[in-house]
Amino acid sequence: MEVSDKREEAVRRILNGFSPQDYSLPEDFVLTKLTGMKGCGCKVPREILLELLKTFGSEVVVDNDAVGIGLDSCVVPLRHKGLNLVQTTDFFYPLVDDPYIMGRITCANVLSDLYAMGVVDCDNMLMLLGVAVDLNEKERDTIVSQFIQGFKDAADLAETQVRGGQTVRCPWLLLGGVATSVVSNEELIRVDRAEPGDVLVITKPIGGQAVVNSYEWLKKKDTKIEELGLEPAKIVRAFQQTCEQMARLNRNAARLLHKYKAHSSTDVTGFGILGHADNLARAQQNRVDFVIEKLPIIEYAEEVANKMISAGGEGFRLFKGTSAETSGGLLIALAPENVEGFIREIEELDGFPAWVVGKVVARDESSSEIPNKAYISEVFTTECVKSRIHQN
Amino acid sequence: MEVSDKREEAVRRILNGFSPQDYSLPEDFVLTKLTGMKGCGCKVPREILLELLKTFGSEVVVDNDAVGIGLDSCVVPLRHKGLNLVQTTDFFYPLVDDPYIMGRITCANVLSDLYAMGVVDCDNMLMLLGVAVDLNEKERDTIVSQFIQGFKDAADLAETQVRGGQTVRCPWLLLGGVATSVVSNEELIRVDRAEPGDVLVITKPIGGQAVVNSYEWLKKKDTKIEELGLEPAKIVRAFQQTCEQMARLNRNAARLLHKYKAHSSTDVTGFGILGHADNLARAQQNRVDFVIEKLPIIEYAEEVANKMISAGGEGFRLFKGTSAETSGGLLIALAPENVEGFIREIEELDGFPAWVVGKVVARDESSSEIPNKAYISEVFTTECVKSRIHQN
Repeated sequence: MEVSDKREEAVRRILNGFSPQDYSLPEDFVLTKLTGMKGCGCKVPREILLELLKTFGSEVVVDNDAVGIGLDSCVVPLRHKGLNLVQTTDFFYPLVDDPYIMGRITCANVLSDLYAMGVVDCDNMLMLLGVAVDLNEKERDTIVSQFIQGFKDAADLAETQVRGGQTVRCPWLLLGGVATSVVSNEELIRVDRAEPGDVLVITKPIGGQAVVNSYEWLKKKDTKIEELGLEPAKIVRAFQQTCEQMARLNRNAARLLHKYKAHSSTDVTGFGILGHADNLARAQQNRVDFVIEKLPIIEYAEEVANKMISAGGEGFRLFKGTSAETSGGLLIALAPENVEGFIREIEELDGFPAWVVGKVVARDESSSEIPNKAYISEVFTTECVKSRIHQN
Repeated sequence: MEVSDKREEAVRRILNGFSPQDYSLPEDFVLTKLTGMKGCGCKVPREILLELLKTFGSEVVVDNDAVGIGLDSCVVPLRHKGLNLVQTTDFFYPLVDDPYIMGRITCANVLSDLYAMGVVDCDNMLMLLGVAVDLNEKERDTIVSQFIQGFKDAADLAETQVRGGQTVRCPWLLLGGVATSVVSNEELIRVDRAEPGDVLVITKPIGGQAVVNSYEWLKKKDTKIEELGLEPAKIVRAFQQTCEQMARLNRNAARLLHKYKAHSSTDVTGFGILGHADNLARAQQNRVDFVIEKLPIIEYAEEVANKMISAGGEGFRLFKGTSAETSGGLLIALAPENVEGFIREIEELDGFPAWVVGKVVARDESSSEIPNKAYISEVFTTECVKSRIHQN
């Protein structure tokens, strides 16, 4: 399969859907039953982690919560002059039912932490796999081989190779990887140089958690669908769009970080757009805050969240900016003059747009003890991002 | 704590035992209840894995089952001239009840794959952690912080640092890591150069599976203890010795691979001494077989296995050479003139001996289609390895 075909293969598979019968599996076989938690929502909450780690000082870093240049991946200067080891790992549980698509999402999600640092070329990947203990042989073989095929196709698209890993048995189906690259200083972008006046751009719309969960309700015939008055066809369509963007590599964005001299960058995953913007703001050298003024939201996810809120729920805190994404887009601070070029070019390369979501502002507090922060503007707008993978 | 103290800390902790009450945990709190499988025994069987992976050719390698120079770790030649990325990952479940010791074992076990390649210095470690979902906060905080402390102490002893990782919630407590180094060709040993006449040496005795499991029976008051006529005090003593050796780094052995010009090397884990010897034999350039003639066995493990066999069981297939080890020793092929020096020096450095276990022989078959193999000699001996961490 050609590289361009592999890109289309993800969309084709998503639109066709996964039929267990095609693989001689029982009709009611559902991958997402093999876990109690979905995608990046399985992370241990950040504040708990930081508390548990604080006795170890800055030396031990978990979930890549480092500062400065190593925000999404750890960056280790090597004894070989001018070279750095850049490395990241992630693992989670299935959140879609097609193991092939799940493989692509897993690989894209791991690589994204390298891409957020401007590292375009990954030197090696390891695959991490926990095979659910209660699968029969047929199920196990189908899932594992489809998952590996998806993971490998994404690695091919990223022009890297999978050369190792570990496979254990586990109560839940556990999926993950490690991405590593050895790079010169120029191959990295510094992510701590945001300046007042910079524009914040995101490369994928948010709302994945609302979409994935409403799709789960639909599959399980949960009464929430009727209670909230949700439309099944719209949920399916939103889910397909979400799958496409989770499986999409952030590699073109990584390339453009260099071309458009990004001042700061991170990828949006389990802590949501605001959580990751806040991490990024804290890591800045300048005394600046990040203000989110607009939330580009996957088609129909906004309606799902609004209906949940009307019914007294929290709507996954989507409008608070803390709704979890899996394999989300890059959030980037650019000088104003570079925004138009970046957005035009990412659309040319990926076939999907990017959005201005906010700005970097000088801190108004005089106290240097209060760290930088990110916040959602009191007057924020939302934009419904129409699907592009559907015919209409 | 000084480095030398950290080495002794493991033995001190092992001999004192883990008292949940010291951490305000319930008296009956048992770490090993948080999994259905123990240590390296959780691996997906090798033949199943290879079957699942075969459609992907040699490009995708799982469980580091590569050939030639990359047997235990993957070795990726980098675009930076003369440098290689060497990388390995492993994760598994608790097999001892002290989370601190479990952290040390986990770290030692991951690093061992680098050491088996002669890589003495690890440039970076990632920690992988799945926190069991049914822990309460107190249990979680104690386990995670103790585990991290143990992992970090082992990393300190190895003169490396933990700079990233991932933490998720999981039904079982999942523990692991990634070890990575960037090395010149001279820092690696070639593991595919065994010659007829070479002597096989192992740096830790075998039998860990029998010991860990009999200790489990003891804790659970399993009727097997009485049925087999096992002596609790001897089981405890064997368990402590096994903990010490699982937590012990194979780093000195890695150094000596260079000094004594090892022709071949691997570390002994989930597939047992014979399984790993067989993998290693297959990877050789010469047409040679590996013959195991002697099995050095942890004190009392031999008796446990023999009693199981007398009762009609398999005795963990200990005498067949396929009983799983966790963080086992290095299995090394040395030219005969280098054996004495290697054994003397490893004992000086580690405080524990190494054993000659067999030899490398020329293949007798003429067919080149039959791969090299390892086998246990029809006339093999066993040696009971007395504990050194106890006073008597």
